[in-house]
This record gives sequence, C-alpha cells and structure tokens, in this order.
Amino acid sequence: MIKAGIVGGTGYTGVELLRLLAVHPEVELAVITSRSEAGKAVADMFPNLRGRVSLQFSAPDRESLQACDVVFFATPNGTAMGMVPELLEAGVRVIDLAADFRLKDPVEWEQWYGIPHTCPELLAEAVYGLPEVNRGALREARLVACPGCYPTAVQLGFLPLLEQGLVDAERLIADVKSGVSGAGRKAATGTLLAECSESMKAYAVPGHRHLPEIRQGLRLVGGSAIGLVFVPHLAPMIRGIHATLYAPLNDTEADLQAVFEQRFAAEPFVDVMPFGSHPETRSVKGANVCRIALHRPQNGDTVVILSVIDNLVKGAAGQAVQNMNLMFGLEETSGLGAIALLP
Amino acid sequence: MIKAGIVGGTGYTGVELLRLLAVHPEVELAVITSRSEAGKAVADMFPNLRGRVSLQFSAPDRESLQACDVVFFATPNGTAMGMVPELLEAGVRVIDLAADFRLKDPVEWEQWYGIPHTCPELLAEAVYGLPEVNRGALREARLVACPGCYPTAVQLGFLPLLEQGLVDAERLIADVKSGVSGAGRKAATGTLLAECSESMKAYAVPGHRHLPEIRQGLRLVGGSAIGLVFVPHLAPMIRGIHATLYAPLNDTEADLQAVFEQRFAAEPFVDVMPFGSHPETRSVKGANVCRIALHRPQNGDTVVILSVIDNLVKGAAGQAVQNMNLMFGLEETSGLGAIALLP
Amino acid sequence: MIKAGIVGGTGYTGVELLRLLAVHPEVELAVITSRSEAGKAVADMFPNLRGRVSLQFSAPDRESLQACDVVFFATPNGTAMGMVPELLEAGVRVIDLAADFRLKDPVEWEQWYGIPHTCPELLAEAVYGLPEVNRGALREARLVACPGCYPTAVQLGFLPLLEQGLVDAERLIADVKSGVSGAGRKAATGTLLAECSESMKAYAVPGHRHLPEIRQGLRLVGGSAIGLVFVPHLAPMIRGIHATLYAPLNDTEADLQAVFEQRFAAEPFVDVMPFGSHPETRSVKGANVCRIALHRPQNGDTVVILSVIDNLVKGAAGQAVQNMNLMFGLEETSGLGAIALLP
Amino acid sequence: MIKAGIVGGTGYTGVELLRLLAVHPEVELAVITSRSEAGKAVADMFPNLRGRVSLQFSAPDRESLQACDVVFFATPNGTAMGMVPELLEAGVRVIDLAADFRLKDPVEWEQWYGIPHTCPELLAEAVYGLPEVNRGALREARLVACPGCYPTAVQLGFLPLLEQGLVDAERLIADVKSGVSGAGRKAATGTLLAECSESMKAYAVPGHRHLPEIRQGLRLVGGSAIGLVFVPHLAPMIRGIHATLYAPLNDTEADLQAVFEQRFAAEPFVDVMPFGSHPETRSVKGANVCRIALHRPQNGDTVVILSVIDNLVKGAAGQAVQNMNLMFGLEETSGLGAIALLP
Repeated sequence: MIKAGIVGGTGYTGVELLRLLAVHPEVELAVITSRSEAGKAVADMFPNLRGRVSLQFSAPDRESLQACDVVFFATPNGTAMGMVPELLEAGVRVIDLAADFRLKDPVEWEQWYGIPHTCPELLAEAVYGLPEVNRGALREARLVACPGCYPTAVQLGFLPLLEQGLVDAERLIADVKSGVSGAGRKAATGTLLAECSESMKAYAVPGHRHLPEIRQGLRLVGGSAIGLVFVPHLAPMIRGIHATLYAPLNDTEADLQAVFEQRFAAEPFVDVMPFGSHPETRSVKGANVCRIALHRPQNGDTVVILSVIDNLVKGAAGQAVQNMNLMFGLEETSGLGAIALLP
Repeated sequence: MIKAGIVGGTGYTGVELLRLLAVHPEVELAVITSRSEAGKAVADMFPNLRGRVSLQFSAPDRESLQACDVVFFATPNGTAMGMVPELLEAGVRVIDLAADFRLKDPVEWEQWYGIPHTCPELLAEAVYGLPEVNRGALREARLVACPGCYPTAVQLGFLPLLEQGLVDAERLIADVKSGVSGAGRKAATGTLLAECSESMKAYAVPGHRHLPEIRQGLRLVGGSAIGLVFVPHLAPMIRGIHATLYAPLNDTEADLQAVFEQRFAAEPFVDVMPFGSHPETRSVKGANVCRIALHRPQNGDTVVILSVIDNLVKGAAGQAVQNMNLMFGLEETSGLGAIALLP
Repeated sequence: MIKAGIVGGTGYTGVELLRLLAVHPEVELAVITSRSEAGKAVADMFPNLRGRVSLQFSAPDRESLQACDVVFFATPNGTAMGMVPELLEAGVRVIDLAADFRLKDPVEWEQWYGIPHTCPELLAEAVYGLPEVNRGALREARLVACPGCYPTAVQLGFLPLLEQGLVDAERLIADVKSGVSGAGRKAATGTLLAECSESMKAYAVPGHRHLPEIRQGLRLVGGSAIGLVFVPHLAPMIRGIHATLYAPLNDTEADLQAVFEQRFAAEPFVDVMPFGSHPETRSVKGANVCRIALHRPQNGDTVVILSVIDNLVKGAAGQAVQNMNLMFGLEETSGLGAIALLP
Repeated sequence: MIKAGIVGGTGYTGVELLRLLAVHPEVELAVITSRSEAGKAVADMFPNLRGRVSLQFSAPDRESLQACDVVFFATPNGTAMGMVPELLEAGVRVIDLAADFRLKDPVEWEQWYGIPHTCPELLAEAVYGLPEVNRGALREARLVACPGCYPTAVQLGFLPLLEQGLVDAERLIADVKSGVSGAGRKAATGTLLAECSESMKAYAVPGHRHLPEIRQGLRLVGGSAIGLVFVPHLAPMIRGIHATLYAPLNDTEADLQAVFEQRFAAEPFVDVMPFGSHPETRSVKGANVCRIALHRPQNGDTVVILSVIDNLVKGAAGQAVQNMNLMFGLEETSGLGAIALLP
C-alpha cells in the first residue's frame, strides 16, 4: 500500500482527491493537513465522506508528511514551493495540483503569479503531468506538476494537429467554458449561486494564468511559436469544461479523424468520438476522461475541435491519481474506473 | 458471475443500473432490451457509457432473457407483470424497479394505476425490496418489488418511530422534494429545463401513487392505521430527494436519537447523523446511502425527521443492486462502494 | 415626485429596490448610501442598471438623507435602529426592510437578534408592513417595518383560516423552501453555486429568526396562542419562496375556497388560484404577487395551503414600494405593474 | 390604441410577447390564436399572466386577424408564409418572429428550411427587423422579418467593424452560447432539465439555420464575401445569449472602442461597455438590450467582441415590439422600459 498525504485538503481538488483515494485499492490515506481546520474531521466538512474517510485535518507537520510515500499538494499557488524541496530530500515523491511547477521559466512564473519562485532549480526536474505527452518521464518522476484544468482540455485537443503540423500554430483560438467549481471553494461574491447561476460571461480575457501554461505545452509538441487567443468563460454549472478550439488547416486533405484516432488509440482516458459528434460535459462528470470530437464546418479551412473534461477529475484530482499510478508502477487505470454520473 | 438482463433500459433507472452493473465485480451484463431502440448501441444513447458498455439494445426476446440469472425491469408501470410469470417459471429471478408488485392488494393497485393487475397471484410472494425491513425474505426471494424513491426516503425516516410506537401514526406529514430525474426521461413540456429550472412547485397533492405504497409499508411496521398527508414537490435539480417528515410525539421523554442509532447500527447504507444536523441531498449524489437527522424544534411535541437519498440510487437502481446482492448471497455492499460526488 | 433615499444598497434587496424605484412614475431616486462603496457608480456594481440609474453610492450622511421624503433601509439587522429616530424627528418617513422594527417585544428581539434594541420606544409605533393586514395604519405610518420574506408567504397563507378560527392554531406546520438570494449577497461558502446548486437541505430547524415574527403576526390575527413548527429549506434557485402549510381543520364543512376568495377579493397583489392548483414560484418571478392555492388531500382533516412569492419582491422590495405607495397616498399598485418573467 | 393579434402564442416567444404587450401603453391585445389550445385561457397555460391577460386562445380565423392593425407570428418556421399575403392585402401589418422572411434568396431558404417558399415575391419587400441597421425602412414597412436570436447578437457585435472595413471579413468566428429557451417549449428529450442542466455542449456545428441569415446580414453591411465559422452551444440556463466573436484586424491602429461608441451612440438598446469589460447575460435578463464589450488579448491582431442579449427579448419579442413601435410611429422605447432582473 502506498502511504499518501494531502496538504491543504479543504478545497474542491482536495475533496475530489479524497473521494478517489478513499476507494483506490493500493492507497492508504495517511494524513491530510489544513492549518485552519486542524482537529476537524474531514467528513464534517465534506458530508459525502461520512462513513468512508475517518481522518481528521491536522496542522501541517514535517514528520507525518515525510513518513508518506507520496504527498499531494491541493494548496493555493505558491504554497507547495515552500515545502517541496525538503520533502523530496526526505525521499517523498510529490504531486502538485497547483501551479508552482507548471512553467519552466521562473521569470514567466513570477510575471503571471506575482511572487518570485523560491525553488527555481526544481523547475527543470518537475515533470508536467500530462500522461498523454510525458508518460515515460512520469514513470521516473520525483516531482510532478499536474496541469491546470483548461490546459488539459485545450492541449489534448490541439496536440495531434500540432504534432503533425496540420494547422497554422500562430492562429489558434481556444474558447473555453468552465463550471464554477473551477473557481474553488473560497467564499467570494462572484461565485455565489445568486450571482452566477442563470448567466454566462467571459472573464480574464486580457490574460488568464493558464495562457502561458498552454502556450508552453503546445510549443513543446509543435516545435514552433504559438499564437493563441484564449477566452475562458464561466458557465452556470458545478463541474465540466467544454473547450471549443479553432485552427486554420495547413492541409485540407489530411484525414484528421484518423490522426486523432491513431494518436490516442492506446490512451485509456482519451475518447475520440466519431467525426461530427457533439460531446457533452455531463458525459464525463465524475470520470477521468477527455472526450474529443472533430468538425470542419462547411468543409472550410478551419478545423473545430470540441474537447470536454471534468475539471476536478481529468482536469485535477483524477489526473493526479493517474500520475501517481504511473510514478509507482501501478496499473494506470487503478482506482479510476468510475463511470460518469449521467443524468 | 451472475448473468444479468435489463428490460427497458432507455430511462434513467436503466442507465443508472448500467452504470452500477458495469463495474460490479460479480455481474456480467448479458442483455438489455428496448423495442424502440433495438440495434442501437447503449453508449450511443448514454455517452457516459462509451468505452465501458459495449452492449446494444435488442428487442425483448424470451430466450435471451431466460438465459439470465436475474432480470431487472426498468420499464413503465404495467409492463413487468406481463413478462414476469414466464421468467419465474423458467427459473429466472426478477427485480422490478417499477410499481407492478409493490402493493399487496390488487384492488388498490388497479385503483391507483388504472389497469387491472394481470398476475395478482404473485403479489403475496413478491418481496418488497427495502432491505432495512425485509433483509431475511430478500435472501430467499424469487421476485423483488423495489420501492419507489419517495417511499424509500419516507419509510426509512418514519420506521424507528413507528416500530417503537413513539409517534401518533394517524397524524403523519411527509413534505418531500424531488429532483426532476424522478419524472423520467420521457419528452414532456413540464420537465423541460426552461419550465422547471429556477422554480419550485408542489404537484399531485390530491393524491400521488406513492401514497398507498408508503401507507402500506408504514402499516406493516407500525401495526396500526396510518394517517399520512404526503405532499411531493418538484425541485430544480437533477437528482436527490429531501424528505421532511413531521410526527406528533406520544412520548416526549424517549431518546429519539438513540432509537435511530440502534435501529440502523448495522445498516451499511443508512447514516444516522448527529441530532440537529441538516443533511444535504448532494451528500448522497450518486451513492447508495440514506442520511437521516432528527430535530425537535423548540423542544416541542413534534419530531422532525430529515431524510435524504439519491432518487436514482438508494431510491431505485442502487437499491435494486443491493437487493440482487442479497438474493445471490453476495456481500450486500458489493459494487455499491462509490462515494457521493461532491461538489 | 417623492424624493427617496436608500441606506445600504449593495445587497439584493437594495438592487431590487433600485430596479423598482428607477421606473416608478412618482419617485425620484435622490441618494443611495454605502460606506464601503462610496464613490462607486451603482451601475458598476449592478450592470442591469447601466444606462438607467446614474447615482453613485455615497457615504451615509445626515443631510442628504434628511432631505428625502422617505428613506428605505436595506441594511443588515441592527443598523436602521441607530439612524431611524433622528430621521423621524427630521420629518422623514422610514421603511425598514430589515428586522429592526418587526417584533413588538424588545426582549424577544434581543433574544433572537443577539443585541439590545436601541430604540424600543419606537416598536409600538412602527407599523408592520403587511398591507393585507395593516392597510389603514400604513396610510398614516411614519415608520414601517417590512415583513421578512418567509413571514409574508406564511402569514398570507394562514391568515384567512386563523381569522375565521377554522384551524387548530396550536398545530400549524410551515415547510418553506427559499431560493438562495434570500441569504443575501455576502460572500459565504455555503451559498456558492458549487455548494448549493443541485442540492436541497433544510437549515435552522432548531430556530429561525422569522419564527417569532410569524408567530406574532398569526397571534394578532388569530387572537390565540400559536403553535408553529417552521422548517426553512434552501432550494437550488435564485429567487422564490414556496410555502407548504399544514393545519388541522376545526371545521371540515367550511367552504375554504370561498373564505380565501372573499378575504383577498380586493387585494391587488394576492391571487387565490382555483382549489387544487399547484402554484409555481416562477409564476411570480420579479412580480409583486402572492399566489395561493388550497388542498384537502384525501378529503381528510388537514388543509394544505400552497403560497408562493418572489422573496425579493412581495417578500422585500416590492412590498416596501407597496407600503410607500400607501404611506404617500399613491395608487397602491403604482410602479408595481411588471408581469412575472416566465420562462 | 393599436389592435394587435398574435398567431401561435403557445411558445416562449408568444408568452414573452404577451408579457410585453400586456403592459404596452399603446397596444390593445385583440386576439391570440392557437389551433391546439383554442378555448383555453392564456393565463391557464402561462400562470405569470393570471390577472393580467384575460384573453383565450382562439382558432386562427381570418376575420379577427384582419381586424387587427398588426399581427405577430410566433409560429414554427413555414407557417407565416401561408397567411401573410392575405393579411397584407387586407391592410394588416405583419411582424414575423419566425424565419419565413429573413432570407432574401428563396433558393437558399428552401435549402436550409427544407420546404419551398410559398410567397417568394414578398422576400424583397420584407424588411429585416434589426433597427440598428434598417430603422428607416422599418418605419415604412408592411412586413417585418424579425432576426433570429443568434443573428441579433452576432451582427450587432460585428457590425461596426465590417462597416469600417477594420477586420478580415473572410476569417470571422462566432462562438455563441445560448440558454435552453432558445430551443422552444416543445416537449423534447434533449431539453429536459435532467438532460441539459449541469452540462455544456456545442450543437449543429456542421451547419445551423442562423448561419445563412448572419452571413447575409454581414454581407450587406460589409459589402464583401463573408467567411464565418459559427458554433452554437447549449448552456444550462433558461435565457441569455453570449456571443464571443473573433476577427483578425486589418488595422491594428484603429480606435475600436471609439468606432463602437460612435456607431451606437444614438441607439436606445445597445450598450457599449468600457473597453475590456465582461458583460454577463444576466445583466440583460428580461430587458431589450444588447451589451457589447471589446478586447484585444495581449494586444495581438485579433479583436474579441463580447455581445450579450436575452434571446427572448432583444433576440425575439422585445425586438418585435421595437419594430412595431417604429412601424407605427411610436416612441421606439415605448413599452420596453423594464430593467433586467438581477439577481
């Protein structure tokens, strides 16, 4: 059994990790920390866990975390980097669900996150936890940076096209719609039901922190400069990301569907739907799956890729568990077999 | 492996059964029938099942159903009774999720369902599938009538009080709120999102079909005449039932909390919360659990019981699987370990 | 034109008042105060008001408020009582949408609201702003205490029965469901979309502050002790209250429908629907109406009253405007003619 | 007073027309027809109209419609064209909210709507009812074709740019999200709450009927060939359209904000928000307004236009009333003064 610790489990990625790890056949939940909630039973905060998780939150403490085989960080950005070096030194493997190790360039990190990076020397080592790209490296990783939710949906959708050079990488558009849980569990007026139910809006159009992450990922697979307009939207639902991606085709003769089907043929968690399908976010609710469908409206020179995930699963906690499975040599699908909840 | 068939799998109890049975370690999904959808892949109708269920709908046919160990009916009321006698004769066990075998009195059945019962001789044999009441009989049952969603939430809430004679059984009130999936997947104006989102309403106040079922169940445990006012409401959400139950106390000294805790101590799927709690329906979303909490407002002589379930799980498909587990001597919790999806 | 001021307009009753007063033919919006938002344009906080309300929030200041004919308080409980005496002295009429002047007994007020009342001498003078009960007094009032949202829906539903002595006033039950806007616009985890969408729960069952207010109102019309169990619920929608009321009949021969129709025949904002109807909260969304329907399930001795309002309109801002119309001798319906938004 | 008739008032554009016309100071609702609901009180179908609209549905009959000054068609596509010629001949003016007269080319109409046009001779005369483009012609029109909901939001957003030639008209993208009421009130599985709540999906990506309408409108103002990728999405809400529009700039020096502000300066129902704003659909809920905001992410060469309307108001019934006001020489804003319902 793998002894797992969670730092900062009071948010939505935290409770989702607990939901997944509590039924994972190879994992023992050893410790979950929260400074503010120390002493409180986890199940008192998250009633779905009543009778299933008996842990209490504890104040973060070096010893109990260092006794773990793996520690997940489900903390606000900037927290993990303060604790990770010591954990790695103690031989603990780390999976960070926040942004601390996602960008390779510490200058760019500071620019978007507003604080200096405190362990830039680890950025090169950290493996970006998108198994569909980095599976090999993940098997050997000590430190994994789980992708953001938007970057997961967007990169998986553009990946095969950029790898094959089929589209103009300088004119990409990602129009993405997210459920409100993506904004976290923090009390905030803007995400009250009475504020964001029965409404749609774009936000952060001038620049969202996931933009440099997506660009970096696409550049690595595409091998060239990326021009990307990324417009995130808040949709009136709890879970789900729907990415609608647009790219001008370089080659209007290519069999796009075949390219996608071959690229993801062996992927356990990417579902390429028939050409012309319309994936729904509910088809992945609670499940670690990305479903993708392709369109070429009016047979024009723009390809439209529709890519849906559950932001808390394939976009966060599920992908983290998938990474853990790889890091520890388990079946990649272990503990991730749940079927999406529909309706 | 138990070979399972499903008759009529195009509704919400059908897809929920598929979701549960597809990951049940002891079950092989053998056949699913739908006259109207014969030939269609199940996963084409329910995209959450893509890659997980490869069955196609087939026209109902005697042979394939008789080759099953158990057949579930997820059909409209009145369908199962036409097929069940033959199946039983062929040695197949039957679990009906509709209402055909819930009422013991065929006259009452006809009165509420508007058609004569075609196999009243089976009503006595049919075991009412509420394991918390009939566990012993269920282990031996050939034919199980799964309770309705409202009856499950209401009966579990009133049960301990009536068994102990602690309340006036002639003055019970059940004010119950249900998600819209309870109305089924049939196209209907009244359950369009644009009609029932952002709104609450009571319905069927003059008389709902679950009323006689609840009364029958309560009479059997309470041993006396039941006076019950039952008011169902439609709530703007997909899943979930919240029953708010009111009863005048006969005995204001009794330790109600202890009575509930003892009554359900050994129950794997009933969670008695601390006195004064407020269970949320989301705490059981997708899970086979009933959570119950007790109140005595202003220390008065009325007890208020709050009882929540997921109408499609503990109120339908999950309970059906729980019954199957009992009928076939499996662990009662087998295949039912998923934790509720929160948020 | 009546010069109107609003103290504390940053919450939902505030913006709803603005929406109504901005199109009221006899009102000039003179000032709206908010200490925290002083200097901000109202329309920057509430984008529905763009192009329609050009006011800015200003710090509360004696002079500008005293220059008004009427001042509305849309403040947290306990704020109005600090400013009202001086305003009244200056000849300004006051309409309080909070709870400061709702209870007649300052001891009871302190018990439920946790702070001493600072102007108990005004409690006797304050007129409880339920026009259907106090129309005459409202025409002469200097100080009006607008009812809470729950109390409006519950009292209008029980009123005719208690006035006529048709029910047992000691065994009343009010099971009430409210949209989330009733909890206000304050940032709070519990009312995030991701927390309370797709879920139902009861809350404050041990005791809600609207309980003493309802009891006081019913006692005044019923003339006797009131026994009331009041269970509020949070429903996953923005607006709307659905009260489901239960009372044992003293007289099972009375023509209940006629009693209600006569009682409310002249009321512009109470709609008695045909016996056996099921009012929906969406039928009053945005409108100053209470719709009521009666049932006697199974012709038993319990009457069920269904009463729906929009909590922000007939349950708050709309009723406040109705009261203002009465106080200033305007048409009672002036400015309140909007039809509910459906769908 | 203008005598107004409505043909086919049982859908959402019908009830919205009723809501608006019932409080319009210059209109008398004379007749509303529905073959299937003849004899039923309108308020029995739409409970928000109780006490406000006393009309009954009547079978369509020539005489009563010809006695009207104006007849609105809120019918399925293909119905109006069968009745309009006769009405026009009788001197009645006609406002069609369906698609029958939107396209100028009958061949294109047949291609997208699947039936031949029965009065192609009227297509040239019909005025496309977008007042921001055709105000002058609308004042003289006998027959007005109200734009679709998507076309209204998309055209208003692209209009100033195309008029000024500021963008490459052959590379336009419109990613648009619509509330479910856009799909109408017809019973259909796909728009059940339990199917489309808590989910997002694109639909009709291969080709939506509003595509040729948008292209035609843009071509007329832009004067050149239009290349447009149009991807509509279903969002889990009742009302609202959020159009996110992308266009490559020809001229990166132009003051886009000034262009929009000048273009719409005199428009009563178009609100150009400050550059970089994020309009929310709830800010126009129930109101006849289009709010528009501009962005240039990362100062790149793509302009992003955000354009929101209420699909049933500025996207249908409200725009129809605006057109009527123009046709009859009334104040353009008459009857359209309601402020959006927020929250």
